[in-house]
Amino acid sequence: MRLAIIGLGRMGGNIARRLLSGGHEVVAYDRDPEARSNLAAAGAEVAGSLEETAIMLAPPRVFWVMLPAGAATENTISGLLELASPGDAIIDGGNTFFKDDIRRARVCGLKDVNYLDVGTSGGVWGLQRGYCLMIGGETPAVAALKPIWETLAPGLGTVPRTPDRGEADEDPRAELGYIHAGPAGAGHFVKMVHNGIEYGLMQAYAEGFDILKGRASERLPEDERFSLNLTDIAEVWRRGSVISSWLLDLSAAALAKDNMLEPFTGRVSDSGEGRWTVEAALEEAVPAHVLSAAVLARYRSRVDTTFADKLLSAMRYGFGGHVEIPQ
Amino acid sequence: MRLAIIGLGRMGGNIARRLLSGGHEVVAYDRDPEARSNLAAAGAEVAGSLEETAIMLAPPRVFWVMLPAGAATENTISGLLELASPGDAIIDGGNTFFKDDIRRARVCGLKDVNYLDVGTSGGVWGLQRGYCLMIGGETPAVAALKPIWETLAPGLGTVPRTPDRGEADEDPRAELGYIHAGPAGAGHFVKMVHNGIEYGLMQAYAEGFDILKGRASERLPEDERFSLNLTDIAEVWRRGSVISSWLLDLSAAALAKDNMLEPFTGRVSDSGEGRWTVEAALEEAVPAHVLSAAVLARYRSRVDTTFADKLLSAMRYGFGGHVEIPQ
Amino acid sequence: MRLAIIGLGRMGGNIARRLLSGGHEVVAYDRDPEARSNLAAAGAEVAGSLEETAIMLAPPRVFWVMLPAGAATENTISGLLELASPGDAIIDGGNTFFKDDIRRARVCGLKDVNYLDVGTSGGVWGLQRGYCLMIGGETPAVAALKPIWETLAPGLGTVPRTPDRGEADEDPRAELGYIHAGPAGAGHFVKMVHNGIEYGLMQAYAEGFDILKGRASERLPEDERFSLNLTDIAEVWRRGSVISSWLLDLSAAALAKDNMLEPFTGRVSDSGEGRWTVEAALEEAVPAHVLSAAVLARYRSRVDTTFADKLLSAMRYGFGGHVEIPQ
Amino acid sequence: MRLAIIGLGRMGGNIARRLLSGGHEVVAYDRDPEARSNLAAAGAEVAGSLEETAIMLAPPRVFWVMLPAGAATENTISGLLELASPGDAIIDGGNTFFKDDIRRARVCGLKDVNYLDVGTSGGVWGLQRGYCLMIGGETPAVAALKPIWETLAPGLGTVPRTPDRGEADEDPRAELGYIHAGPAGAGHFVKMVHNGIEYGLMQAYAEGFDILKGRASERLPEDERFSLNLTDIAEVWRRGSVISSWLLDLSAAALAKDNMLEPFTGRVSDSGEGRWTVEAALEEAVPAHVLSAAVLARYRSRVDTTFADKLLSAMRYGFGGHVEIPQ
Repeated sequence: MRLAIIGLGRMGGNIARRLLSGGHEVVAYDRDPEARSNLAAAGAEVAGSLEETAIMLAPPRVFWVMLPAGAATENTISGLLELASPGDAIIDGGNTFFKDDIRRARVCGLKDVNYLDVGTSGGVWGLQRGYCLMIGGETPAVAALKPIWETLAPGLGTVPRTPDRGEADEDPRAELGYIHAGPAGAGHFVKMVHNGIEYGLMQAYAEGFDILKGRASERLPEDERFSLNLTDIAEVWRRGSVISSWLLDLSAAALAKDNMLEPFTGRVSDSGEGRWTVEAALEEAVPAHVLSAAVLARYRSRVDTTFADKLLSAMRYGFGGHVEIPQ
Repeated sequence: MRLAIIGLGRMGGNIARRLLSGGHEVVAYDRDPEARSNLAAAGAEVAGSLEETAIMLAPPRVFWVMLPAGAATENTISGLLELASPGDAIIDGGNTFFKDDIRRARVCGLKDVNYLDVGTSGGVWGLQRGYCLMIGGETPAVAALKPIWETLAPGLGTVPRTPDRGEADEDPRAELGYIHAGPAGAGHFVKMVHNGIEYGLMQAYAEGFDILKGRASERLPEDERFSLNLTDIAEVWRRGSVISSWLLDLSAAALAKDNMLEPFTGRVSDSGEGRWTVEAALEEAVPAHVLSAAVLARYRSRVDTTFADKLLSAMRYGFGGHVEIPQ
Repeated sequence: MRLAIIGLGRMGGNIARRLLSGGHEVVAYDRDPEARSNLAAAGAEVAGSLEETAIMLAPPRVFWVMLPAGAATENTISGLLELASPGDAIIDGGNTFFKDDIRRARVCGLKDVNYLDVGTSGGVWGLQRGYCLMIGGETPAVAALKPIWETLAPGLGTVPRTPDRGEADEDPRAELGYIHAGPAGAGHFVKMVHNGIEYGLMQAYAEGFDILKGRASERLPEDERFSLNLTDIAEVWRRGSVISSWLLDLSAAALAKDNMLEPFTGRVSDSGEGRWTVEAALEEAVPAHVLSAAVLARYRSRVDTTFADKLLSAMRYGFGGHVEIPQ
Repeated sequence: MRLAIIGLGRMGGNIARRLLSGGHEVVAYDRDPEARSNLAAAGAEVAGSLEETAIMLAPPRVFWVMLPAGAATENTISGLLELASPGDAIIDGGNTFFKDDIRRARVCGLKDVNYLDVGTSGGVWGLQRGYCLMIGGETPAVAALKPIWETLAPGLGTVPRTPDRGEADEDPRAELGYIHAGPAGAGHFVKMVHNGIEYGLMQAYAEGFDILKGRASERLPEDERFSLNLTDIAEVWRRGSVISSWLLDLSAAALAKDNMLEPFTGRVSDSGEGRWTVEAALEEAVPAHVLSAAVLARYRSRVDTTFADKLLSAMRYGFGGHVEIPQ
């Protein structure tokens, strides 16, 4: 198929490359000329503006927007909607909040433009491994783009088949690595929860290794202290243990490179999706203790001290004369 | 009554003073001569050693130990047990772990020495307000010391009577400010949970004020920002609100003195009892999410960054190329 | 002053009564005729509709709306705005989400109508004790209603003065029990955080008593079990302890009435404000572990089992053959 | 090698079978005659008592104990120590608390008997996949049993090699699926943290799927509801996503079999190790919010309502007249 990729950063650039390798024709656009010429070198046709992008496609056009969530995506999609004709499709492949998708799909629908939201997991590895795709939108629009989904998704690969899958299966696409999750917003909703889970998993491993490391603490009785080799522990858990996973593989690699993780500041960003997952849980009254705690731990990692901590010190001073004041 | 107070720090000194004011005879001992002479000035008889302390009392002797939990208390009680005669009473008024009380009571029992554990709340304010006492031990031994409990406890005071109290009341002592909680260990167990709750309450206020303060953040949309007067908010909540409490009074006082709480480091210590409360909950399979989170928040306050945080950064770098490394 | 109270439920009715006792003239309206006649008996003038309410006041009119947050409040305020003239004031005294206040104040401003949001704490006790008021809105509008705030608020009362208060004080009103927190929305924001803290405090006490009760469990080694008198423990903590508070007073009263709390289902509702507080913390990146956990515990209390629990059982069966299936 | 396996349940039986397939000679003992004859059928020599087990081995003997942690293991190891000669090795392959290992190793050392603790992950799948082994004990004793570790562990298999592994590697055994973690206790400590992490991971997935399922709730605005196919979502996440793992594979299989997970009660047991992990974190002052929350969620799953919940209802009734009482 022929389609446009708008936004040629780490994610968009690799998606364009994987589509090119899969035999698709890509019209590539980015505000940054260097990003454009990189893609030209990879075989894409390059556009100099959104307008030019639209002209270089024939209806029904397909625009895949791959930009940071927020103003960049919002403005680009508004711009594309101006240029779009009935039957065209606008795909938001970024990390948009699902309620924004619901709103946008309504607006696009007024012009008979199809709006699709595609949650895309796979990170910098997706170019080789393929991308796990969670798609929201109207069924005919999703079906029309099947060749694109099949190229981007990992495919059956070497993943062992899930037992009992045969009978329960409503949608064979899941085994190829993509799903049509539901109407507009559903794709990003599923991707959002994916990331919320990701935060929880990461925090579980991180706390576990912290406890392993802390076992060498001189605070402990001498015969209850261990000085453990975290690198080897991560490695051995990759083999036959219940907690093997790709995130553990990455942890093992990081520890193999530097078992103290010295280069990292430990000020951990969050992309918004962990927080939205917790907000969704709050809306639904789901008691998501672990997913919330994982988001809050990241918040705490980014400040030296909190006002809350100071107020605790102040109260302790108030009732017990405990001094937590620099002397 | 005549009794010995061993350990004349912030808590022990004030307990001795309150007993003296109440007409009791106090034999005071501390390793620090200055602490001893302070109490002498307040009217106590002073002993120069544990042995001398024992000699200055007549059987049945009463030894009130008021020392930091751990080795100091443990060694002193062992020493006293050497000196004690059948019928004597050893009181641990500190913050001892209740399982240590259970063990010690067994050892003391072998010599017919009474062991009592007294959880004591009231902090530096207890001298004037009285101390809330939670007592563990055998019933006759607890009953024999009634004059001491009544002097130390706050008494009926001006606290309004609890409705329905009359009918349910098994123990009028609770309204005077002391209870016989159960056998040895029960006093410190109740005090331990008291402190566990205290951590939870403090953290609830602390987080609330942090959210109030954070509302001025420039991260927020301009029309959703407020610059709130925390000092006045703490003050107004003291009046007619559902969350009025003594800890709020202390918060209001701290904020009135310095609304930025500048002097405090925010590195918050914990005395062990919060942690033991969580351990008790784990033993009992009680889902104490809030009390655990309160203890863990204090742990987090005492380090700049955790190994867990660094591992999160390392994983994010691994799957997404996200850079959380000082540039 | 003369003002209308719209909504004569538990809160609105008592507010009207307290204003009447304070010498104000109250025009009372509720859709329920019985509620209206109750207020008539208490000395209020009664209106039969919103229109009639507006007619019974002279400009500048003051409408105090005291209805459940959501559609009831929203529709009433829209209706009043139709009827209002420039210079009139509409007060929302309920538990509205602060972003709705910000929006409404903007709309009211277009007609030069003053919009005030008043967070009101005190529950069913406010009639006697007075209400703690947290007010948002424009300064002149807030100032104009001073006689109303002073009647509703508890006043200085017998609460001991906060040390250092004198110097720091920007607003003597806080000591009378009301504050002007900031522009529209700020009143409800402060009240929302108040309730968020309330949830945290309640959960801290609740977990503590659960741990006390759980100490009698037969799961524990026999010599580490205590059968504790929760009623007396709640009572003694009211006296001289660090954790004394109004919520503890209420707990003591409930336990004095029935120490097993048999009548209560333990399915705990939430009013929205606890959840909004957590959402505010998420927006501000404040690590509010305790306040979140308190909200989530309520959610969990309302279901027998969660899908999450079932998935845990399913995974345990998958890797370990552990059977958590009714046999 | 020739060794005894004591305890022929799900884990012990399979370990014996894997050793037999690997060419080792197994003396098998269990109190249950049926378990014994099953193993005899698989090629093991069978002993009728601990004494007979000891006789059927020649010094230096190797006893592998694979029993439930607690009294069963403790008594068996005491019995074996009676029968053991200097140079013999006793291996605890179960889920023992690491402080019990430290104590036992000290006692065994007095008789020059080697004590090894082996954390064993792999569940019912270990027979085919191999077991991930975390070994604690003295270096010569661990080295002497190399043929056993190599047979039980998964070996290099098809797991892709960790980048940078070559340089950092201190212990090539990790890549074969076993490590010598440190002195006695270290093996079970590492396994304990492994299980603590496992609880956190499981809870993260479980909460995520709960949020996905909850999106169909009628509580939500109609256009923000999705009815999601959880079976397909679990499946698609197995392919190229950041959160792929063995636990996700198991979740996908469970959902493929029954997407409502109807057969499961959702009353989730815990084996002790999750709780011990949290206790270790508390000792070390590591802020393990997620791992604690995961354990507490299991506790909560096992009761209909908590006393804490009832006290919340009682307080709400006390201050607001909110009725949470069956009518």
